Amino acid sequence: MTDSPLARWEQRNGTALTVASLLFLTSYAVRVLGHGLPEPVRALCLAVLLAAWAVFVVDYVVRLRLSGQRLPRFLRTHPLDTLVMLLPLLRPVRIVQTYETVQHHRDRPRLALHARVIAYAGVSVTLLGFAGSLALYQQEHAAPGADIVTYGDSVWFTCTTLSTVGYGDLAPVTPLGRLVTVGVMACGLALLGAVTGSFSSWLIQVFAREGERPPGDSPEASRRDDD
Amino acid sequence: MTDSPLARWEQRNGTALTVASLLFLTSYAVRVLGHGLPEPVRALCLAVLLAAWAVFVVDYVVRLRLSGQRLPRFLRTHPLDTLVMLLPLLRPVRIVQTYETVQHHRDRPRLALHARVIAYAGVSVTLLGFAGSLALYQQEHAAPGADIVTYGDSVWFTCTTLSTVGYGDLAPVTPLGRLVTVGVMACGLALLGAVTGSFSSWLIQVFAREGERPPGDSPEASRRDDD
Amino acid sequence: MTDSPLARWEQRNGTALTVASLLFLTSYAVRVLGHGLPEPVRALCLAVLLAAWAVFVVDYVVRLRLSGQRLPRFLRTHPLDTLVMLLPLLRPVRIVQTYETVQHHRDRPRLALHARVIAYAGVSVTLLGFAGSLALYQQEHAAPGADIVTYGDSVWFTCTTLSTVGYGDLAPVTPLGRLVTVGVMACGLALLGAVTGSFSSWLIQVFAREGERPPGDSPEASRRDDD
Amino acid sequence: MTDSPLARWEQRNGTALTVASLLFLTSYAVRVLGHGLPEPVRALCLAVLLAAWAVFVVDYVVRLRLSGQRLPRFLRTHPLDTLVMLLPLLRPVRIVQTYETVQHHRDRPRLALHARVIAYAGVSVTLLGFAGSLALYQQEHAAPGADIVTYGDSVWFTCTTLSTVGYGDLAPVTPLGRLVTVGVMACGLALLGAVTGSFSSWLIQVFAREGERPPGDSPEASRRDDD
Repeated sequence: MTDSPLARWEQRNGTALTVASLLFLTSYAVRVLGHGLPEPVRALCLAVLLAAWAVFVVDYVVRLRLSGQRLPRFLRTHPLDTLVMLLPLLRPVRIVQTYETVQHHRDRPRLALHARVIAYAGVSVTLLGFAGSLALYQQEHAAPGADIVTYGDSVWFTCTTLSTVGYGDLAPVTPLGRLVTVGVMACGLALLGAVTGSFSSWLIQVFAREGERPPGDSPEASRRDDD
Repeated sequence: MTDSPLARWEQRNGTALTVASLLFLTSYAVRVLGHGLPEPVRALCLAVLLAAWAVFVVDYVVRLRLSGQRLPRFLRTHPLDTLVMLLPLLRPVRIVQTYETVQHHRDRPRLALHARVIAYAGVSVTLLGFAGSLALYQQEHAAPGADIVTYGDSVWFTCTTLSTVGYGDLAPVTPLGRLVTVGVMACGLALLGAVTGSFSSWLIQVFAREGERPPGDSPEASRRDDD
Repeated sequence: MTDSPLARWEQRNGTALTVASLLFLTSYAVRVLGHGLPEPVRALCLAVLLAAWAVFVVDYVVRLRLSGQRLPRFLRTHPLDTLVMLLPLLRPVRIVQTYETVQHHRDRPRLALHARVIAYAGVSVTLLGFAGSLALYQQEHAAPGADIVTYGDSVWFTCTTLSTVGYGDLAPVTPLGRLVTVGVMACGLALLGAVTGSFSSWLIQVFAREGERPPGDSPEASRRDDD
Repeated sequence: MTDSPLARWEQRNGTALTVASLLFLTSYAVRVLGHGLPEPVRALCLAVLLAAWAVFVVDYVVRLRLSGQRLPRFLRTHPLDTLVMLLPLLRPVRIVQTYETVQHHRDRPRLALHARVIAYAGVSVTLLGFAGSLALYQQEHAAPGADIVTYGDSVWFTCTTLSTVGYGDLAPVTPLGRLVTVGVMACGLALLGAVTGSFSSWLIQVFAREGERPPGDSPEASRRDDD
């Protein structure tokens, strides 16, 4: 698998795609938040945004070709790729994967597994949360009867959703705003799963290591074992 | 167990039951959402709904007979079957199980375990959430002082409940609506458990595989081992 | 440990304590919910309640004696016993433990581990939730400006808290009501931990069993192993 | 690692740092809650607070020197130390670690692993929640349109956040109050992870022990194994 054309394509263009993803997110943020910016700047942002999107589409087509699969089968085996191509705000998911692929092929020493899981979950959730708060602000801030009227409100609401706390002092009122929020909720569930899963597997590792110690080292643990 | 009459019954009639379940859910949805439909269509839906229910009752009786157990013991050993027979909106739980049984007996290559857990949890929760949002809408939309007045509200509320976020911008006010919501909450807890459990077990698998690598491959991990 | 005087005491009086716990909970429920009951019935309930409490205190003192420890050390090594003696509404925690002890010593075939964890978590949370909803109703229903005015409200609020959803359509306003709610939240966290932990450990077991199958049975899984 | 100068420094000064941390938290609490205290007392609190902070800065500088690393690298390898030095309200995280280090080097019998995880999570979350509720109260209680006006409100709000329930009957309205709340949410997520992870790893341990029993002991479990 390491030497397939697909893997080589990913390895060679990973950095370019990451840059395109960040440009997409940045230009989207400027478009959404920069109401007062002069029109040429806003037009430039739109151009960058569309150019980045074009890059994603080209990448998708090349990957489809290199996979040697027909479109229906590719759609079925790469649902995430298709979704991310159509909705580039979800790109942060791919940034982490791309970074991993690039690092892996360059044989650089990577972070330890625990640090990696925490770092990836943190980076993905932060970027997806940022994208979500922008999209939410765009949908909600001008809607009649909306609670979420400033970008600060949107960030605060996104944080309460990602942590699955959900106070409800603010809530989206437009259908699209609610749809975006459901996506953020899914990220929140995944984050909870990542935090809990990391902790759980770390504890199991520690328990396994403690279990190998000679009895008598930890009196209470050994008492439990011989019951 | 593979060749018991009960297993053969499940294998032979699994597809028919799945179709009946989907018909039940569809006709229920049309009844609940189609206020403006002509009366014959609504009557047809009711007929389909009752026919599907009759199929479930027949299936239950046959399973009771084939199990060779008396009713009180069958009630105790098959509580889920009984609940699902009485409350067919919970059928989605059985759809997944039936699919699994059918696939297992046909010896088709099934999905890998992780993909299966994710797919089953996703399908079950989506279908149960759909059934829950319908039942909730039916109970609430005409109640005095209700927040949940459109089906869109009901779907949004169901999503906030399934993710255990719970903003509370909308909330059920009728006793039956609250009862339905408690059921949806239980699904949400189970979903959270499934997401977290999958992540946790996947991490543990990855850790176990990394631990088998020769030392020096991942400097930080090996440094931890020899402390 | 099986033949210590303490274990024998627990084994012999487990059933009596369970009955006393249920009597305590029942008489408390009648006192709280039965506003309109004639005074003699209410007085009888109070008597039963106090008698059950006396049984718990006697049990605590006997256990202290049988342990052969001095009071300060017993307080430190049995914090849960002390808490449950002072606050008998938390008894449901002990009911499960007592049942387990009794069954263990009678060498009856017990339920399988997964079924037991689910059953115990379910029973404990149901009983603690019931006790919590009673205590909450008692504190809140007559408070000025309270949301929770009927027992149905209290049950609904307790359910939203146990599932950690927390809509906030109702909320306690008295300090004691909030304290009770914090206790219910702790139960909710524990329930979430039990559900997630059960699912996680079950998945790990299933993965371990699948991993022992010969390669080729599940193509995708084996492809992952040899990478 | 046990005999490095850094470890010896930590071992020797751990108790002093813990005392400084508790003094910092106490004097902060008195400053925030004691509106009506005479000015000299409030000034004394401020002095103690600043002195404790100075101790933390000195400790940080010594650790930087003893590590033999340059500042940029130290910042990268010790992000938590830097954060805790700048924001001493997060000190509770270090209290637990310091206690662990001191106990470890004195070779005292420590608690069993499960008890330790529960105790550490409990102590950390309680102290961080206390610090969070103080900071939140300080930011919110005088803000126009604030819900959180008494310290009791702040404690109640912190509890609903830590358990990720989040009713939303109260909510912060100031940007800094919201920032503090996001920090408390992160603690809540970590607490959920700790509870769930402990339960999960404990169940896996119990399952592993049960699995070693001879078949026939638990009929249902053995029936499952031979399928």
